[in-house]
Amino acid sequence: MIINIPENSDFSIHNIPFGIFSTEERSPRAGVAIGDHILDLAAVAELDVFDFNTAVFEKETLNDFISLGKSITKKVRRDIQLWLENEHSVLAGKPELFVKQSDAQMHMPVYVGDYTDFYSSIEHATNVGKMFRDPENALLPNWKHIPVGYHGRASSIVVSGVPVHRPKGQTIPNDSKQPIFGPSQRVDFELEMGFITGKNTNLGDTISTEQADDYIFGLVLFNDWSARDIQKWEYVPLGPFLAKNFASHISPWIVTLEALEPFTVSGPKQEPEVLPYLKYQGNKNYDINLEVGITPEGSDEQTVCRSNFKYMYWNMVQQLAHHTVNGCNINIGDLYGSGTISGKDENSYGSMLELAWMGSKPLKMKDGSERKFINDGDTVTMRGFAEKDGKRVGFGEVSAKILPAK
Amino acid sequence: MIINIPENSDFSIHNIPFGIFSTEERSPRAGVAIGDHILDLAAVAELDVFDFNTAVFEKETLNDFISLGKSITKKVRRDIQLWLENEHSVLAGKPELFVKQSDAQMHMPVYVGDYTDFYSSIEHATNVGKMFRDPENALLPNWKHIPVGYHGRASSIVVSGVPVHRPKGQTIPNDSKQPIFGPSQRVDFELEMGFITGKNTNLGDTISTEQADDYIFGLVLFNDWSARDIQKWEYVPLGPFLAKNFASHISPWIVTLEALEPFTVSGPKQEPEVLPYLKYQGNKNYDINLEVGITPEGSDEQTVCRSNFKYMYWNMVQQLAHHTVNGCNINIGDLYGSGTISGKDENSYGSMLELAWMGSKPLKMKDGSERKFINDGDTVTMRGFAEKDGKRVGFGEVSAKILPAK
Repeated sequence: MIINIPENSDFSIHNIPFGIFSTEERSPRAGVAIGDHILDLAAVAELDVFDFNTAVFEKETLNDFISLGKSITKKVRRDIQLWLENEHSVLAGKPELFVKQSDAQMHMPVYVGDYTDFYSSIEHATNVGKMFRDPENALLPNWKHIPVGYHGRASSIVVSGVPVHRPKGQTIPNDSKQPIFGPSQRVDFELEMGFITGKNTNLGDTISTEQADDYIFGLVLFNDWSARDIQKWEYVPLGPFLAKNFASHISPWIVTLEALEPFTVSGPKQEPEVLPYLKYQGNKNYDINLEVGITPEGSDEQTVCRSNFKYMYWNMVQQLAHHTVNGCNINIGDLYGSGTISGKDENSYGSMLELAWMGSKPLKMKDGSERKFINDGDTVTMRGFAEKDGKRVGFGEVSAKILPAK
Repeated sequence: MIINIPENSDFSIHNIPFGIFSTEERSPRAGVAIGDHILDLAAVAELDVFDFNTAVFEKETLNDFISLGKSITKKVRRDIQLWLENEHSVLAGKPELFVKQSDAQMHMPVYVGDYTDFYSSIEHATNVGKMFRDPENALLPNWKHIPVGYHGRASSIVVSGVPVHRPKGQTIPNDSKQPIFGPSQRVDFELEMGFITGKNTNLGDTISTEQADDYIFGLVLFNDWSARDIQKWEYVPLGPFLAKNFASHISPWIVTLEALEPFTVSGPKQEPEVLPYLKYQGNKNYDINLEVGITPEGSDEQTVCRSNFKYMYWNMVQQLAHHTVNGCNINIGDLYGSGTISGKDENSYGSMLELAWMGSKPLKMKDGSERKFINDGDTVTMRGFAEKDGKRVGFGEVSAKILPAK
């Protein structure tokens, strides 16, 4: 191996995720995470080893690189694996090609034109239905027929590490008809994964479940922050708005669909039967371990949730087929959130709303304090990795601190 | 006047709206509509009359021009007015600077990063509430406190003239629990206006109602197509999705806020009193006459709606203040739809849903046929203009044909 990779690294030779980084000396550019390092793709390009226009590696986002298509991006990933494994390859004896991750700043990996959020975990939808609607009929009638989704705000998606101020907004006190204005009292995380499309379509085009994998470049961890009290007051009849668009965070490294292929598993049985355009072949769920930790200011991290991406009721190929069945066009870099990923166990719920069950079961932190929702100064960190046959492919983390309202 | 402007032209000397056009000889570039012509700004720039980098006029969108700021964009508009009025100006004797609108193809005037749709007409919200909820309590409790809005799809916003296929999707037959799949049977227009922001903010920033006008570059006509039957089945609990994102159309010329300033009027009294961040000073509604016509294939246009932008309950400065009060950041080129603009009179309703009252009062076309919603082959055309003291400032039209489902 050209470079030392710590055991249990998320960024093993089997991963090779793409991102955008900079250092004091290097302007924002494309790189690949390997162990605790980043391989600088703009620097590798100077070795004249690629047969395409490598200006794509000097851009501030990966969109142009991704637009080269999977035949090229897959070959780049494979070539890098071979070069890293071969101690006599073109990368040998060139430490200047590598940057320590601890010396680098990460940036948004793609420009997100449009962002869609789904609602595809049956456990999450059921929990929310039990809390806010009818415990006996927790799922709405359309839920098992439609991978329910809605449009979110693209501009406020930021990369892991960017702190966010607690949002202010209108909320309605219990038993009042007059809303009040002030900082949200119920800021929550939502544990999600997001996929990023790697191919455009034209208005009127559709993508079948069979074609969908070809359109998915890769995945990230996604924290879809929510202000529950703002949401409760604003969301009828047109859905969440200011409760969501104050910020969403993504992890900086896009793990390709190819790197995740060994970890596919079958999904839950879908009953009633879905409409023909939502039927699919093969294993389209992914066994990715997920966890969420809360670190109060000046204290240690407390893990509050262990979940898994494999719990999703609706999978990504169904989401993409549904999204385009009416002819809606998609672009390279568009982001699609899974919706909060909850499992069956109480400790696998993907939001404070569910974990603390609307505040009725506060969670204990390491410093003895309790949490119903997220406090000022808390840092929320999500991690994810897949592991099988000694191979580990991980996402690193998406982590962000909530600052007091401005 | 350098060029003849027909009487009653939307594009009078008082207007000077900006757009992107091309001809067989001219690549897409910035222009100004004047009478039946377009003044080619890239060609004007070659006369060396502007003191900024005029490469902005050769771009495929106006975003870079708008990003120069209002001090420059306002001066460009004023200079053009002066040059057009002065028969000895730099524009004199240079017919090559002008292109006939009938010889030009119009393009999307801006790249839209994010698109938000509001729901700000009290008559429209009341009509929808009467039809689908409780006629006695048509408005939801939040409606008079919040300029309700939601995020829409930016990628499928297209310019006037682009035909669109009827969308397919899931709908639920009356008295059935099993959805069916097929072409929407209830394609509808929504008469809206949209404003386009001309300044960025950073995540965490807010815009007050006092500052908001500074952030608004200009307005367009906006047809927010809706598939009512798809919407009915999909929209709970997270809002409209495939019912809307198959296409929205905008008019090609952005009429600046400065051009519309003479047509400001006071808005409706807002009761109950709004929260302090939504209070505003001055006249923030605009007296803009609006109409919608339907042209069945091979027949003549039937006007089906005459409305006015002045009917809006919530105005644009309130919408923008609300949108950013939680710190949501905005960008140049973002689009904000008003929501369907309905007035009090039955013929001023801004959608077929309301005009034909859920199909119970079909509208007669010129060819004798009836419409409850929009048929294949129908072209829907919206027009808008303001007029006062002999000055007319108009938007031209946004027009598009519905093709059969693919």
